[in-house]
Amino acid sequence: MYICGKNVAKEYLLGEEPVKGIFVQENFSDYDLLNLAKRKCNNIKVLKKFELDKMTKENHQGIILNVKDFEYSDISVLTEKEDALVVMLDHIEDPHNFGAIIRTCEAAGVDGIIIPKNRCVDVNATVIRTSVGASKYVPIVQVTNISNAIRDLKKHGFWVIGTDMDGTNYTKLDYKGKTCLIIGNEGNGMARIVTENCDFIATIPMNGKINSLNASVAAGIVIYEAIKNRGINEL
Amino acid sequence: MYICGKNVAKEYLLGEEPVKGIFVQENFSDYDLLNLAKRKCNNIKVLKKFELDKMTKENHQGIILNVKDFEYSDISVLTEKEDALVVMLDHIEDPHNFGAIIRTCEAAGVDGIIIPKNRCVDVNATVIRTSVGASKYVPIVQVTNISNAIRDLKKHGFWVIGTDMDGTNYTKLDYKGKTCLIIGNEGNGMARIVTENCDFIATIPMNGKINSLNASVAAGIVIYEAIKNRGINEL
Repeated sequence: MYICGKNVAKEYLLGEEPVKGIFVQENFSDYDLLNLAKRKCNNIKVLKKFELDKMTKENHQGIILNVKDFEYSDISVLTEKEDALVVMLDHIEDPHNFGAIIRTCEAAGVDGIIIPKNRCVDVNATVIRTSVGASKYVPIVQVTNISNAIRDLKKHGFWVIGTDMDGTNYTKLDYKGKTCLIIGNEGNGMARIVTENCDFIATIPMNGKINSLNASVAAGIVIYEAIKNRGINEL
Repeated sequence: MYICGKNVAKEYLLGEEPVKGIFVQENFSDYDLLNLAKRKCNNIKVLKKFELDKMTKENHQGIILNVKDFEYSDISVLTEKEDALVVMLDHIEDPHNFGAIIRTCEAAGVDGIIIPKNRCVDVNATVIRTSVGASKYVPIVQVTNISNAIRDLKKHGFWVIGTDMDGTNYTKLDYKGKTCLIIGNEGNGMARIVTENCDFIATIPMNGKINSLNASVAAGIVIYEAIKNRGINEL
C-alpha cells in the first residue's frame, strides 16, 4: 500500500513497522524527513513529480512510502478490555470523515473502532492520510455484520449508545464503563435495525434551520462528552 | 456564482433569493427537485453530463444553479447584537473545513463568523456545498485585519477565547455574554499576535500519541461546549 504526505510519512518513518520502499520527488527539500528516510530504509528512489503523481491521487507533498497493508484487529481486543470505550461506524462513506474520526478517537483515547466490511470505506491511503497517521495507534476492527457485533458487545457487558435525532440530550447520558458509541452514515444516519439495538440514543441539540452536522464533527462532540463524563479529560 | 449538488440546490430553490439560471443533466430523475426548479426559475437548460462537468469541479449530482455571489455581512451585525456568540477563523485554508464549521455554527445557533480577507479560503462553491447550504443562514463577515477586528469586538464588550494547547481546559471556561471563539489554522494554529490578544485560551485535552484534531472537529467540540454553557442546548 502506498501512503503519502509529510506528516503521515514521518509517523511511519519514526514507527516500528518496516517500510518497503520510499519515493521522493527530485529536489525534495525537507532534509529532516530525508534523514529519517535514509535511516529507516535503503530502498529510496528519486522520481519526477509526474511520476509520483501517477502513483497516487492524493496530495503527496513529494514523498510516498510503500508500506504493508493495514492490519485490522480482532474484536476480542475490545470486548476483553476493561471499561473499554469503543466507537462503531455504521457505514461511513467519506474517507475524509473516516480519517477525521480516527484522528479524534486517537486524541480522545478511545480504545478502538468497529466498521462493517461492506458499504463502508476501508482503511485506505486517503483515510490514513486524513487521520494524519493516527490509524497506527487505534485498533480498528472490521466485522461482517454490525448487528452481530452489537450482540457480541452486549454479551460482554457493553452499553450501546447510538446517535440520532429524537433521543436523549447527549450531555445527560452516562458514558462510564464498557461503552460503544455508534455514529451513523453521512446521509441516512444509523440503519433502523442498528437503532433498534441501541440501549440509548444520544441527540445533539440543534438551534438552526438546516440543523445537520458533518458526521466527523458530530462524532467529535459526542466522543468528547463521553471522555469528560468518564473523567479522563483533565489537562 | 455556480453552486451545485441536490441538497444545496434545494436550499436555494426553497429560499427567497433569486436564481438566475438552472442547469440539469439529461434524464435527471429527482422530480421533486425539478418541480421546485420550474416553480423558481424559467431559465432551465438541460445539458449532457460532460457539459455540467465542465462547469464545476464539484460533484454536481446532475444539477447546477447560477446564483448571485455570496454577500458578506458588516461586522456591526455582530458587534451590536446582545450577547452575541461569534466564531472567528484565523486563516482556515481547507474549504471542506470551512464548510463544516459554517454547518456547525448554523446548527448550534452561533450568531456569525468572522474571517480574514487574505490567506483564508472565501465563501466559494465548495464551501457552500460542504456547508449544505448553511452559509445562507449564518452572517459571515470578512475583515482586512484580524487584530483590528478583535480590538473592535473588545471595545463592544466581547470576551475573546482562543483555542490552543497550554491553556485552560475548555470545559472550565465561561462562554456567557458577548463571546468570540477563535479557531486557528489547520497546520499552525492561531498566529502569535492573535493568541496574545485573547482573554482566555481554551484547550481540548488529548490522551493519545498524535494528539491533533481536525480543525472543524475541534471547532465543533468547543462551540458545543459554549452552547451548553450558555444554556441553549436543551432538546
